[in-house]
Amino acid sequence: MNILFIMYDQLRFDYLSCAGHPHLHTPNFDRVAAMGVRFTRAYCQSPVCGASRMSFYTGRYASSHGAQWNGYPLRVGEHTMGDHLRKAGMATWLIGKTHMKADAEGMARLGLAPDSVIGARQSECGFDVWVRDDGLWGEGPDGFYDEKRSPYNEYLKSRGYEGANPWADYANAGVAAGEKASGWMFDNADKPANIREEDSETPWLTDRTLDFIDQATGPWCAHVSYIKPHWPYIVPAPYHALYGQNHVPAATRAESERDGAHPVYGAFMGNKIAHAFQQEEVRRKVIPAYMGLIKQCDDQLGRILDHLEARGSLSETMIVLTSDHGDYLGDHWLGEKDLFHDPSVKIPMIVYDPRAEADATRGTTCDALVEAIDLVPTFLEVAGGAPAGHILEGRSLLPWLRGEDPDWRDAVISEYDYSVTPMRDVLGMSDADARLFMVFDGRYKLMHAEGGFRPMLFDLETDPDELDDLARRDGHAEVIDRLYDRLAQWGRRMAQRVTRSEADIAAMRGRSARRGILPFLKDGSEVPAALTEKYRGPVGQVYVPDTPARETGSERDV
Amino acid sequence: MNILFIMYDQLRFDYLSCAGHPHLHTPNFDRVAAMGVRFTRAYCQSPVCGASRMSFYTGRYASSHGAQWNGYPLRVGEHTMGDHLRKAGMATWLIGKTHMKADAEGMARLGLAPDSVIGARQSECGFDVWVRDDGLWGEGPDGFYDEKRSPYNEYLKSRGYEGANPWADYANAGVAAGEKASGWMFDNADKPANIREEDSETPWLTDRTLDFIDQATGPWCAHVSYIKPHWPYIVPAPYHALYGQNHVPAATRAESERDGAHPVYGAFMGNKIAHAFQQEEVRRKVIPAYMGLIKQCDDQLGRILDHLEARGSLSETMIVLTSDHGDYLGDHWLGEKDLFHDPSVKIPMIVYDPRAEADATRGTTCDALVEAIDLVPTFLEVAGGAPAGHILEGRSLLPWLRGEDPDWRDAVISEYDYSVTPMRDVLGMSDADARLFMVFDGRYKLMHAEGGFRPMLFDLETDPDELDDLARRDGHAEVIDRLYDRLAQWGRRMAQRVTRSEADIAAMRGRSARRGILPFLKDGSEVPAALTEKYRGPVGQVYVPDTPARETGSERDV
Repeated sequence: MNILFIMYDQLRFDYLSCAGHPHLHTPNFDRVAAMGVRFTRAYCQSPVCGASRMSFYTGRYASSHGAQWNGYPLRVGEHTMGDHLRKAGMATWLIGKTHMKADAEGMARLGLAPDSVIGARQSECGFDVWVRDDGLWGEGPDGFYDEKRSPYNEYLKSRGYEGANPWADYANAGVAAGEKASGWMFDNADKPANIREEDSETPWLTDRTLDFIDQATGPWCAHVSYIKPHWPYIVPAPYHALYGQNHVPAATRAESERDGAHPVYGAFMGNKIAHAFQQEEVRRKVIPAYMGLIKQCDDQLGRILDHLEARGSLSETMIVLTSDHGDYLGDHWLGEKDLFHDPSVKIPMIVYDPRAEADATRGTTCDALVEAIDLVPTFLEVAGGAPAGHILEGRSLLPWLRGEDPDWRDAVISEYDYSVTPMRDVLGMSDADARLFMVFDGRYKLMHAEGGFRPMLFDLETDPDELDDLARRDGHAEVIDRLYDRLAQWGRRMAQRVTRSEADIAAMRGRSARRGILPFLKDGSEVPAALTEKYRGPVGQVYVPDTPARETGSERDV
Repeated sequence: MNILFIMYDQLRFDYLSCAGHPHLHTPNFDRVAAMGVRFTRAYCQSPVCGASRMSFYTGRYASSHGAQWNGYPLRVGEHTMGDHLRKAGMATWLIGKTHMKADAEGMARLGLAPDSVIGARQSECGFDVWVRDDGLWGEGPDGFYDEKRSPYNEYLKSRGYEGANPWADYANAGVAAGEKASGWMFDNADKPANIREEDSETPWLTDRTLDFIDQATGPWCAHVSYIKPHWPYIVPAPYHALYGQNHVPAATRAESERDGAHPVYGAFMGNKIAHAFQQEEVRRKVIPAYMGLIKQCDDQLGRILDHLEARGSLSETMIVLTSDHGDYLGDHWLGEKDLFHDPSVKIPMIVYDPRAEADATRGTTCDALVEAIDLVPTFLEVAGGAPAGHILEGRSLLPWLRGEDPDWRDAVISEYDYSVTPMRDVLGMSDADARLFMVFDGRYKLMHAEGGFRPMLFDLETDPDELDDLARRDGHAEVIDRLYDRLAQWGRRMAQRVTRSEADIAAMRGRSARRGILPFLKDGSEVPAALTEKYRGPVGQVYVPDTPARETGSERDV
């Protein structure tokens, strides 16, 4: 079996028709949901691209792999999806974005050449690269932010789009009054991107995916990783015009959220993005564009599904649809992601397993508490590899697909390290303390901020929109204590004992018992027969001096 | 300046005359204490050789480096003392024991050849090897436990000691009734080892140390790491006869400790070593031998000090004397180490800094809460390297040596992973749950065991001998909660963000502010001048189709 692991960037869990969106019709997402299981309580390990993805790709919490923000290199040697699957005989390919930054210092320290096979995989988060393109080819006064060239930009140039950065000038810009209207500016979100639709990012990556499928021999896992619907929020025609102001829901927010807001929440409400999304004119421009981007993703997903079906490959391809995090879109007075309200931290997670044992669950939903780190163990089971519980912190989702009721986690954890953001200075935190944790037990969601703050607490049963921070007033000490205990238990988890598997440890336990290396009270009394001979062998040349053993102290010890 | 970092194995903090031992006179340890500072509350990060040493050598907690027991490989790429000091221009050498096991699988995965310079350092925990000898050259039915040969054993053979393993047959065996009397057996602890004193392990390693000093050009750090007074408890004449039964203190233990003992404590009281040390005849044989081994260590330390003094090198050599853990010696009904009573987890820590800024503290003691992980940061400061707070979890001790009163930690943490021991099965634990944690705030010491157990709690102010487990009865919930909170805070520590320094993060923060990559509400309104040009440049070939933007939904969305 092969695995098509498709990720969208910044796709909100509820912006799909199968998840109940009232206006956005996504028949192809829905088609996969009908073929498989839609997990309704799936969470990313960190609501920021880089950290979340490194958790997806390692099967480990952000605090475990350490790459806790965009641009923080994944330490050399950290086990990745590719390491696990390749060991189990499954090739592991990348088509699109990872946000991976290589640990160049660590590789140099270990003498690992970036252009060797091993070095290239280390640099690419364990993937073999079919095509890598992270999108966001931004530039500033000093030139491009990323020294790597974008294959997509090169493609655009080959298609006649001019300049050094047609990604910015065409794919992510419109036109207004005869000038470029950059998609970086929300004011331009209602304009069509200045590009032929078939040349825009999502169809381009889909083409690359179909190319891959047509030549691949299995078993393979392909990580198809779209840049959209991540901002810049601008989409080519006709998608720019499919949705309008009447499709923009009222923001889920309440004035009461701003009164006595948690200081960290307050600081994030004060950042630029949040300020922008607090304005209805921004939401009215951005959300239709965001929906158009998703609609384009859905159409392109349809191309992939049709292609697999036409090849007769649907019956041998597991398909996973997910996202690295959501998008506040103005809910809770915030934009983008960062914090732990559901629009930000909850992710879509749809899994189709073609095998007969998953027949009973097709078209169903599952409300188990799922984490992004569950995918690597899932894929490893599909690949037939030995579980690697000493490295992987997630759990295989396959039992749910088989309709079983496995013993499961009682809480999900997510983290956010904001040391690199302006909010670190706004709040006066050290780099070590500029960190947030979420623990959610399926009903109560607690946010803990390092640095001596009170927590935040929501009861999603009585307050599914998370508007009422219960920790602002007394009366929930017991719940808060319980969730803090759960977070503490997680903090003590065994995360770094990665060089010894359970089998290794069992073998060591057996060996030490068999060898009997513990010392013995009486000569030979507990010595295994095979050892007695060694211990009791004949004496060689004797070097013992004549000094008799004394029963009392010596003059040296007065 | 050079650093002589001397470690003894299993040396109890209170078996030195400068620490108040009533019978054991250790003038050379005392001499260093008089020249420097003796830290009276120093703790190892794990009371077992391998894990403790990996914390000493990495400056990181056991849960952070992951090598949580003897024989658990240190993961490839983990930063070591050698990595830090060499970067600061200081050579880092090993003379003796480390208990390091290379991460052979990880090295192979990264294509790192063990016989390359980088591979050799990775295999030896970052040290360049002057001589490595881990001692304990045990053998079982299948031969030697360790495939490596012992330089010390080879030395013995060159000196005429016969057989494949003179370490076992001579250095660690006596003679009784014309037969070998193995030092593995406590019953033989009162016999002199069957070896010339000058050929025994401690003088041999001292000779290697003097050889090193005579040829070394600085700046260097030499880790001189003695195997003794670790068992086998047997020592050559005259040391075997210096102490007798009248020097064996009464065991620090109470019958009340066995009544309602914590289940984990109870399991450890039931192991073989504990059973042995519960017998007075064992203590009466072993403790005089243990004292003799320490006395020999002291004499050999005297040789090193005299040698440095004769060379005029004492004024340019920092000296550190410590141990990887202690030895219960029957206290608390236990033998060896493993748990967190002071005889096991507390370590000697004497630091001599020859520089004038340390003059004010010479001969003093310091009761700050010191951890084994503090040595790497201390040495790094001595070497003049940049602090590496994103990797190192300890703190430099130099402020204490200068007589300052630095802001300091309020608790020490130690850990013990017993998954490889028989107690794991006795207690029915999983590998992940077979773990213990200590948090000690200078007065209260809490032991937490994973797996749903109650904690243990001691008040060292009212009960310095740790005989009264306060958690057996009600009335200390507040203290317990406070220490659990402290442990939880530690559990959430930033331990793996090792690829980004504080300076890196500050630079990223600055860059993102300068670049202004956040999106903008109004065209150009917040765009830095240098960017405006790029965003507003002339429009190229326009691909926008004629479709007008609609303000309402489309027919595709019904």
